This record gives sequence, structure tokens and C-alpha cells, in this order.
Amino acid sequence: MQGLMMDYPLTIPAILHRADTIYGHKPIITRLPDKSIHRYTYSAMALRSRKLSAALQKLGILKGDRVATLSWNHYQHLETYFAVPSIGAVLHTLNLRLSPDDLSYIITHAEDKVIIVDQVLLPLYDKFKSKIKIDHLIVIPQTGQPIPEGALDYEKLISSADEKMFVPFNGDEHTAAAMCYTSGTTGNPKGVLYSHRSVVLHSMASSFADGLGLKESDTMLPVVPMFHVNAWGLPFTCTLLGTAQVLPGPYLDAVSLLDLLEKENVTITAGVPTIWLGILNELDTHPGKYKLSSLRMMVVGGAAAPRSMIVGFEERHGLNVLHAWGMTETSPVGSISFLAKELQNQPKETQYNYRAKQGLPACFVEVRGRNENGLIRWDGETMGELEVRGPWVARSYYNSTDMDDRFTEDGWFKTGDIVTIEANGYIEIKDRSKDVIKSGGEWISSVSLEGAIMGHPAVAEAAVFAIPDAKWQERPMACVVLKPGKSATHDEIIRFLEPQYTKIQLPDKIEFVTEIPKTSVGKFKKSALRELYKHMGS
Amino acid sequence: MQGLMMDYPLTIPAILHRADTIYGHKPIITRLPDKSIHRYTYSAMALRSRKLSAALQKLGILKGDRVATLSWNHYQHLETYFAVPSIGAVLHTLNLRLSPDDLSYIITHAEDKVIIVDQVLLPLYDKFKSKIKIDHLIVIPQTGQPIPEGALDYEKLISSADEKMFVPFNGDEHTAAAMCYTSGTTGNPKGVLYSHRSVVLHSMASSFADGLGLKESDTMLPVVPMFHVNAWGLPFTCTLLGTAQVLPGPYLDAVSLLDLLEKENVTITAGVPTIWLGILNELDTHPGKYKLSSLRMMVVGGAAAPRSMIVGFEERHGLNVLHAWGMTETSPVGSISFLAKELQNQPKETQYNYRAKQGLPACFVEVRGRNENGLIRWDGETMGELEVRGPWVARSYYNSTDMDDRFTEDGWFKTGDIVTIEANGYIEIKDRSKDVIKSGGEWISSVSLEGAIMGHPAVAEAAVFAIPDAKWQERPMACVVLKPGKSATHDEIIRFLEPQYTKIQLPDKIEFVTEIPKTSVGKFKKSALRELYKHMGS
Repeated sequence: MQGLMMDYPLTIPAILHRADTIYGHKPIITRLPDKSIHRYTYSAMALRSRKLSAALQKLGILKGDRVATLSWNHYQHLETYFAVPSIGAVLHTLNLRLSPDDLSYIITHAEDKVIIVDQVLLPLYDKFKSKIKIDHLIVIPQTGQPIPEGALDYEKLISSADEKMFVPFNGDEHTAAAMCYTSGTTGNPKGVLYSHRSVVLHSMASSFADGLGLKESDTMLPVVPMFHVNAWGLPFTCTLLGTAQVLPGPYLDAVSLLDLLEKENVTITAGVPTIWLGILNELDTHPGKYKLSSLRMMVVGGAAAPRSMIVGFEERHGLNVLHAWGMTETSPVGSISFLAKELQNQPKETQYNYRAKQGLPACFVEVRGRNENGLIRWDGETMGELEVRGPWVARSYYNSTDMDDRFTEDGWFKTGDIVTIEANGYIEIKDRSKDVIKSGGEWISSVSLEGAIMGHPAVAEAAVFAIPDAKWQERPMACVVLKPGKSATHDEIIRFLEPQYTKIQLPDKIEFVTEIPKTSVGKFKKSALRELYKHMGS
Repeated sequence: MQGLMMDYPLTIPAILHRADTIYGHKPIITRLPDKSIHRYTYSAMALRSRKLSAALQKLGILKGDRVATLSWNHYQHLETYFAVPSIGAVLHTLNLRLSPDDLSYIITHAEDKVIIVDQVLLPLYDKFKSKIKIDHLIVIPQTGQPIPEGALDYEKLISSADEKMFVPFNGDEHTAAAMCYTSGTTGNPKGVLYSHRSVVLHSMASSFADGLGLKESDTMLPVVPMFHVNAWGLPFTCTLLGTAQVLPGPYLDAVSLLDLLEKENVTITAGVPTIWLGILNELDTHPGKYKLSSLRMMVVGGAAAPRSMIVGFEERHGLNVLHAWGMTETSPVGSISFLAKELQNQPKETQYNYRAKQGLPACFVEVRGRNENGLIRWDGETMGELEVRGPWVARSYYNSTDMDDRFTEDGWFKTGDIVTIEANGYIEIKDRSKDVIKSGGEWISSVSLEGAIMGHPAVAEAAVFAIPDAKWQERPMACVVLKPGKSATHDEIIRFLEPQYTKIQLPDKIEFVTEIPKTSVGKFKKSALRELYKHMGS
């Protein structure tokens, strides 16, 4: 028997409609490329978004067509977030930090019909434009310079459009709404295709008091880019709630951000750890310079938040850091490290330990861990690869079959993260699955050993990785860079580690080197290290 | 093009699964009929609920079958909330405040197969049992007395069941999950049939920081009965979030509730205004007697919350009242009167005015008002009947066609409430549609006039209703009961009203009476008054 409730599809136009009717007066604030501040309201945004929808339809964009953006965080980008899905088309945000080759591959793979580009990003666009085929280039004018020949002017498109010419999409909520490509370190980038339903449910979960606790009276500054995983869905969540948005444009340095956080009385902000480390450093260097009394929460995700950073913000500056975990494939919010009731009376040190973990799964995100022995116990000790499923988790990649090993036969997504899970549900990432060392049935965390070795006073850097072993399958090895003028021996480092580790977990080999190979974003190139040192195995 | 996200149905078993795996240690606390306290955990609840599911299946209950409950708020009732929908059957909660005739009508109309009854409610059951036909009577043992011959013992069913014998429902989220009948004042009661999807989405919206703001660290005492509109969905919402639940059993008097609020450190509670008026009176009578420092919020709904009550709790006892509006047909949360950002810096008096309104529509609940001239302007003055639509609003009644005039042709539900809506979205109920006086194209609120007349120092009670008028269609008339020993004339009362009303809004006739006819729940019988005085029209 079916229920007798209304068939009300969960769609992105329904989010915009709500903001327009209830929160029309609330502000959206942007720092423009010339550093001036642009202000308008949700009503104005909704009207311009509808005009853009009408203009895109007039350009021949049909349901299911992909419309790409190459943009910083600003109000016009926000307009595309609603205009494109509102005609049933798919918003494809391009990550402007990818290489021109990756970008042209992605645009070609997604078969984008239109690209909307920031005028200040045309130099990047020029690097791959000869390799792609699109119907229309739309340029958002920003510099006062003329836009390129053959391109359409975003503002002229809007001013000449008749918003009454289109009816917002109101069909099947499983329709594709947005698309992001992951920047996987191996193989080609893979596209994740979000649906209206997944975006709406993810926004609802982000509105939970136990989630980010975002609310109408907040002012949100998303540092996390709108060109990557939809800025963690915040443009949608803020619009659903009528939360004031402060969009930083291209200025993501600590001083510019702090200026905006202070002047606009921002209450909540979100970004990756490197951003916050820069901000913490600026605050430490200039105590008392910035007045951040409005700021109630800094959300950190995209990479593990160092415990010392969480402590530093709280103890030195009275700022509250909330750690969250997710991936492009999980929309992205997968878990949030809020303090459960049982932890609220624990000592500060215990609380920091939990707040630095990846936290509790978001509602309806189910989690489990798996190793060679099957599903792991939730004992906080046994390591396994984290598998997730839920209403905003990808079930496959767009037009791709070679990554089917990322999904289990019973329909869970394999995150590639090696975790422990505690009995109370708290998840902690220990390593990436390709980096964990599988030694005689035990898994050894390379990340943990690296942290421990780098605790030695003579060590500047340490990378730990697996080398093959006939008996144990794999054994850990470390490459160590010593601090200038310092010295340490293999035995000294092993003795330094011994109190924290069992014998089987200690590295078999330690190589002292002058430099460890790194990726473009500063991570250790562990695949290169494994290849380089595989002869050291036995 | 379809999105490529997982097909994860929004179901009630998914809520229970989450509580069981993440919040298994959290408590559920019940005051039993013998006044002792029963405590167990979500894990224990989940296990017993699964056993009950298995037992019901063994009894022959199939998908779509209706399983009724006649129960107070307690842990076994909570188990049925999950056990019944988890086998794809429909939980039908019976309102034990209805007459035996209404109850037998409802049970027959719903074709309930099983009734689960509190042992302490058997005297009520006995009053209608001869008029109904069911397959099984299940009695929850509570008194130590033997259960009636032919009935099944709830506890024996559970202890003998094998929870591994059933697989939780995981199908189409639009499947019916629960059913409540409205106690309409006219015509037969009408059944509202909730779906798994509507229950889940309603629970998610109730978890918003801007909604009830319910969270894991809260302790919730729902005074609102589980036998009426699913206790506003709180049993589902609390379980989704792992919120501790305190269930008051049959003891809903002010002293018993205050005792439980204090002893269990309740942080949030919810009920109808009459309950809170009793509690306010008890607090006023015994200042300092109850320690309620844990209580952060009292949610009031089901009827308009008097402004004076909101003020009284806040100013005399430091207790925060949140007013919400809803109906059986809206699951029930339709609107919530939280203070939007623009009101947070307003004077207290302005804030109280807004907090006493019905508030802002819940997310994805769309609202509009309609009068004879079409849709009303959102100007805070024009009255119209409130129409709503949304994912947890009924689209029709169960097996009923005679109430199709409650739904518009374009699919909105007509609430029967006469409202104004402000430009900022705040809804205020002015009257019921059958009671508002339609006079020459203007609508006059009977509720407003009654309040004004009762402000006269000589007046004890006043009911205002429509009498027919040849020229104006309808005109207001008032029946007034004077306070003992006081006197007032027609002209004195009119002069008292004149400063607040236009001439056209003033009553044509005022009749001084010794008593105003009332319904069983103490409301004025306005239909009787209209009939009684129709000859006074012109």
C-alpha cells in the first residue's frame, strides 16, 4: 500500500523558490577581482538566475546538456548553480587547479556544450581552448576589458533575457543536476554525477543542529572553492536556509580572508587545513589584530585537520574548529566530528583527540570497514578500508567502467581510506589503502609511523612505505631527511619508536636521504618511493 | 539524464539501523503506570523491535496490513513505531481521547488486523470491542493482573520471537508506514496515510538548527501523545539523532511532568498549550521549587500559544518557548516561529509578537493564502485561507472522497485556517475558515474581536460569530458573559472597541448571556451559536 502524501520532488529550483519567497531580503556579498565589494539580495540572485536559465534555453541548451563553469567563488557563479539545474541541465564545475591537459580531457569527456569563464581566468582557458569543442563560450566580464571575439557576455545575456520564458524543472528528482570530476592520482579523472535529490538531501543533512548547524541567522564564508565538490554543497545549503553568503572571489590568502571574516561579521566559514594553517599563523603573528568575535565555527575538511591546529585555534584564539570528512563521491559530507554527549564531560585532551578524528557518519550515511578477514570490528584498533553507502554517495562514475573496483558487489563505495571505527561510531583515518603496509596479516599505518619518526628531534621529514617481503608479504621502510646539522642512526630511530610500537610494526630499513620526492600539492610521492626502493625488499 | 547516486530509500528501518549502530548506548526512559521508572537503551529497543517485527509476521501480518495501537507514551509503544513499518505494515495509532463510537468507526474504516492495547486502557477497549472485528488483540502487561482470555501477551510475543526471522523493509519509500485519523468537528474522522519518505523527510527537517534544533546531546520529553500525529514525529526524529527520550506514560499532570523534567535533566519538551499553562501555573505557585536549568526549550503546538504564556515562561522562569504550527495532514510540522536574524536585534516586545505567531514555513513546505479575490498579498494584513504543499503534506484522505474540497485543483491542501502572511514570510492564524465573518468583501476575525471584548473589565467570556445580512452577506455578532457583579451595556462595549477597529468591523449585535455553549474540549460551539442566532440577522 502506498502512502497518501504529496508527490513533492526534491529539486534545486525548490531551494531557490524558498529563498526567493522567504529570504528575498537576505544578502549575498562578493569580493570582486578589483577587491571592491558587490552586494545584492537573494531576490536579485533568484531573478538573475531565472534570466540566465531563460538565456541558456534560448541558446539551445536542453535537458541533460552539460554547462561548465571555470570560476572563483562569486555571485555570478552562484547564479549558475541554480540556473543550470533549473532547466534540467547539468552544472559541471571545472577545477581550475587542474592541469590544462586534465581540463581539456574532462571537458571532452563530459561533452560540455557551454563553458562560462571568469574573465580573469581567460589566460587559463586559453591554454586548453584549442583542444576542446564547445558550442558557446560565455565570459563573465570583470576587468573592464572587452571580452574575446566570438564569446558571449554573461551580463548582456542576463540583461536581455526574459525570465518569464521558462518554467523551472520540476520533474524526477533523480535527474542529474551537477557534475564534478575527481582528480585521482592514478588514471584519468572520473566524473561524479549528482542528482537533484542527492543535492537536496545533502543540504538538509548539512542543516542539522548536529551537522554544521547552519541556520538563517548565520553568515557563511565558504573558502572551499565552488569549482570543487560544489563548495561542499554550501551554496545550496545556505540558499535553502536563507543564510547570508560571503564569497571571497580570487583572494584566498590569510590576510584577505581575515579582513572579510572581520568586516562582514562572518559566523561560520569552511575550508581545507592549509587555508586554516595560514590563518592560524597570521593570527599568532598579530595577536589582537583581527576582531573575530562573530565567528562561531570554522569547518575543516578535504584533508585531516592536525590536532595541534584545532588546539591552537581554540586555546590561543577562542575559535572553534569542526572537523568533517568527505570525498567528491560523497557530495562530500560523509562524517562530522562533533562531540557526542558522552564526550562533553570528558577532559579537554580527550575531546581534542576526538575532534581530530573524522567523526560520526552523517545521517543515512552507513559505514563499515573491511580488511583481508572481512568486515572489521568496531574496536577502534582494527584497520580496514572504509566503505560507505547513502543517499548522496555515488553508485558509479560517469561513462566509465574501469573504476568498477571502487564499488562492492553489494553496492557500497570503497573510499580508499584505511580507518579504525570505535564502538561509539567514531571513524579515524589511518592511511590511504594504497599506502598502508600489509605485513603478515597485520596492517601498519604509514601515516602513523611517519608522524612518530618526525617526532624525533633530529628528523625534518620522513616518508614510510612498503617494500616487498617473501615471508611477510610487505614490510615498512622509511626515508628520512635529517635537520641541518643534526644526526641520527638507524638504531637510534628504532629505539625512539620502540615504546610506541610492537616489534612487527617497526621499519625494517631506514634510508637517510637529502630530499623526498613530492607531488605538485606537496604530498609524498609514495608510489615513486615504492618503485625506487623495491630492490631493498627480500 | 539521471544522476549516478545510490538508490538509498528513505525508510523507517534505516532510522532504527542508525540508532542501533551509532547510538546503541543512549537511553530511553519511561514512567510506568505504577510510577516506577523503566530504563533501557536504543540497542535494547532495536532488538525488541526486531523481535516484535518477527512476531507480527508470524501472526500473519502482511505488507500493507494495518496494526493499531491504543497506548500512552512508553517504550513498548516506541517499539511498535519501528516494528510495524519495518515489516512494510502500517502503524495505526488510535487517539484514546476519542469517543468509543469514533474509535470503533476508525478501526473498522482502517480495517485494522491487530490492536496492541495498554493493559491499563482495557476499560476503554472494552467499550468498543463488540463493535469491531480484528484478528488479534495484543495486550501490553502493566498491572500484574492476568491478561484477558483470547488476548496475546506483548511480552511473551517478544520473548518467544526470533529476530533473525525477518528482513527489514527496504523497498519503495512511498510505501505507507503510519496512519492517523483527524478528529474533525464535522463529518466522520478522516485517515491520513504517511509514507516512509514523508516520515523521514519530516524527521530531517525537525533536526534543522532552525527547526527544533534537536540534537544527539538533547534529552527530549514528548508530552504530546504518541497516539496523536505520531507525537509530532518526535519518536522518529529522536531515534534518527540518538537523542535520549523520556516518556511520561499516563502521567501528564503538571507536578508529574515537572518532576520528570527535573529528575531526568530534560533539555527539550513538546506539547499543547493547555499542558504548559498548567505547568506555568505550578511554577508560578511554587517559585524555586523545581530546578529546570537543563531545559533549553519548550515546544508548543497543536493550538495557538498565548503570547502571555510565552512571556510568562521567559520573564518569570527563564524558560524558552518555541511555537510551531501544524496539523495531522502536515505530519505535523508546517511552520516554526523561530526568530529570524532581522528580529534578533528588535525590542523584546516585538520579538514576543513574532514568537506568538505561527512563524516561518518549514523547509519545502510552501504556503499561500486565498480569499474571494484570489491569492492574498503577503502584507501582514490581508486575510485568506492558508493553503500548503510539501513532501510531508497529505494529498488525500484514506478511502474517502467526500473531503476532496480540502484539496485544490492544483494540488495544495486547504488548511481551514484563516491567516495573514507578512512580506518576510511570517504566518499568523486569525481564525478558522468556518468562523471568520465575511462582510462586504472584508474578512473579520472572530478570534480578534473575542480577545478585544474579553479585554473589557466587566467581561468574563465572549464568543463572536456571523449572522446573515442582506446587504453585507454576513455581520459579526457577540455573545457576552459578564463577570459576577459587573455590568456593561451594548454601547459601552462598542465604545471600548472603537479605538481598535474600523466601523465595519464592530459587532452589529451584542447579546448578554449567562453561558456560552462549548465543545467537550472547551472550545466555543460556534456552529450552534450561528444556528441559534441566525434570526437576529437582517
